[in-house]
Amino acid sequence: MNTLEQQLELEVSTQPRPSSPRFIETMQAYQRTAAMKAAIELDLFTAIGKTSGTVAEISQHIKASERGVRALCDFLVVMGFLSKYLDESEPRYSLTPDSATFLDKASPNYVGIATRFLGSPFLTDAFRDLAAIVRAGGPLTRERSLDHELPLWVDFAWGMAPIMYPVSEQAANLLRLGPEAKILDITASHGLFGIAVAKQNPTAYIVALDFPSVLAVAKENAERFGVSDRYSLLPGDALTIPFGNDFDAILVPNILHQWDRPTIETFLKKVHASLKPGGQVLIIEFAPNDDRVSPPMPASFVLNMLVNTTGGDAYPLSELMQMLRNGAFVAVESHSLLPSPQTAIVGIK
Amino acid sequence: MNTLEQQLELEVSTQPRPSSPRFIETMQAYQRTAAMKAAIELDLFTAIGKTSGTVAEISQHIKASERGVRALCDFLVVMGFLSKYLDESEPRYSLTPDSATFLDKASPNYVGIATRFLGSPFLTDAFRDLAAIVRAGGPLTRERSLDHELPLWVDFAWGMAPIMYPVSEQAANLLRLGPEAKILDITASHGLFGIAVAKQNPTAYIVALDFPSVLAVAKENAERFGVSDRYSLLPGDALTIPFGNDFDAILVPNILHQWDRPTIETFLKKVHASLKPGGQVLIIEFAPNDDRVSPPMPASFVLNMLVNTTGGDAYPLSELMQMLRNGAFVAVESHSLLPSPQTAIVGIK
Repeated sequence: MNTLEQQLELEVSTQPRPSSPRFIETMQAYQRTAAMKAAIELDLFTAIGKTSGTVAEISQHIKASERGVRALCDFLVVMGFLSKYLDESEPRYSLTPDSATFLDKASPNYVGIATRFLGSPFLTDAFRDLAAIVRAGGPLTRERSLDHELPLWVDFAWGMAPIMYPVSEQAANLLRLGPEAKILDITASHGLFGIAVAKQNPTAYIVALDFPSVLAVAKENAERFGVSDRYSLLPGDALTIPFGNDFDAILVPNILHQWDRPTIETFLKKVHASLKPGGQVLIIEFAPNDDRVSPPMPASFVLNMLVNTTGGDAYPLSELMQMLRNGAFVAVESHSLLPSPQTAIVGIK
Repeated sequence: MNTLEQQLELEVSTQPRPSSPRFIETMQAYQRTAAMKAAIELDLFTAIGKTSGTVAEISQHIKASERGVRALCDFLVVMGFLSKYLDESEPRYSLTPDSATFLDKASPNYVGIATRFLGSPFLTDAFRDLAAIVRAGGPLTRERSLDHELPLWVDFAWGMAPIMYPVSEQAANLLRLGPEAKILDITASHGLFGIAVAKQNPTAYIVALDFPSVLAVAKENAERFGVSDRYSLLPGDALTIPFGNDFDAILVPNILHQWDRPTIETFLKKVHASLKPGGQVLIIEFAPNDDRVSPPMPASFVLNMLVNTTGGDAYPLSELMQMLRNGAFVAVESHSLLPSPQTAIVGIK
């Protein structure tokens, strides 16, 4: 209690002492996540899009209390996800342009389903004793680590698909492929990266590699997009299963960050060996600058890797490019996939 | 899956589709709370203030892994609570002015102890199923409600004292008291509001009312500030215990928000009856504007009241002032206690 005592024993001053709003806001930031998760679960944004936006109408629509709806809506207005206006004496809520685009199920760009993954207790609970993880240097048990087959990866595949869809289109566009190209999509997950390549290259053939439970999602998406006749499944662990060879391109979307440097370097050599001469590797990553603290989203991803992996990292772009060169790739180049926080790196064998 | 299907079936476009960084940031906002809580628990800021700020030195100082320290520090740089610079080849972290003031135990304004309350699992766990609370209109069980004696209130009394100390000084300064004034401090908690009155009015006598477990904290603080000879304890529940009468002032710091309107109105009548003619009531509250969505901190407090109370609210300032007038107080006035998010309301009998 020493510091508190020191503080409390300070003389009374007539000047206001400093306040610490940012600290308090940060200690309550978890409430923002809870509010968004609840709003998606209740389908609040869709209800606001469909109704005139009074508390009574919204409550009836989502079968929730008026007290709860009012508090949650006001909180979401403060967060900038809703607007509020007074129509005569009754307040009404309406969607902001951002919420109408992403959070109303009536929108083709709806991403709310991502709460299945981003709000999964498996992920959020891992942060409950972050101090212990910082002391230990990684997850406290093997079961808490993401680098093996988990039900969570099915949630990822379904949940993150709407967010990754535009990214996959941009990324696929970076490959230069001739006719009848043979593509390996490693840790395919939702499959969208490989599927985007198949759609943009009507004679390309895709081999999707992932754990079996997850490949079921990729297969369903391949059917949905009409490319299943050029799509096959390779169930297994990317670190141990043989890839085959003579691929024109190998896709490595959002997996390297889960591994340590030696694992990545070994993996990239295996990728290199599986490509035709002139073949391309396409890596998608969170790739911060060399300072490791910018831009905000790729840089802050490092905490997820500390909490959820034993050796992963948010590798700076320059390190990723160097690892490709070390793996004998030539003509390595990078492309920011704005407005997403992701970066594509293309290496040629 | 309808909406996902709609989305996935959209034609491939060469234009980048919209991205949703604010949604993703919000779904990960809980990580900011976890990072701050861990940093305080590890006493990371104090260690950075004492060392040259390299990962090796910080890790040694707080007995944590280098991998963990680097990830947490980088994350805190992104959040704006640390600075990072490259000294020759080695990165070093340093405190921002805000962190040096509030988060380094060597500072007299250290507030880190507030994580005991703000980061208490009792509070944070209550948000785990916010959708159910919104449906129900309040806490799912009586045990989850804050309006009775709880160990949490002792954490509040110790933890929030450094944050409330400057507020209590400003608030006490609003009272106009003659010699030998008799003051009742209702739900005294840490006791700082009554203690500030005692310090500013050297002949004032304070009666502190709260649950017995909490009054132990107020008593200790009264001794620490040298006012214990003018300080007595009234253990009990503010809603049921008789107050006594002929008080010159009654302090009501941060309690009204936990109650519904009828309870507050009954309570204020009891307060009125316990004051001398001309006596003052001093209320401290989160008091948003009539729109209930500004300023951000007082307005967003409403979610805490939904989650943790059966009838509480973030009452707008105009409603609080009206409730005082309804309780027969005259000359009701309000004072913003900037830079804190709190407001003082003074009513005269």
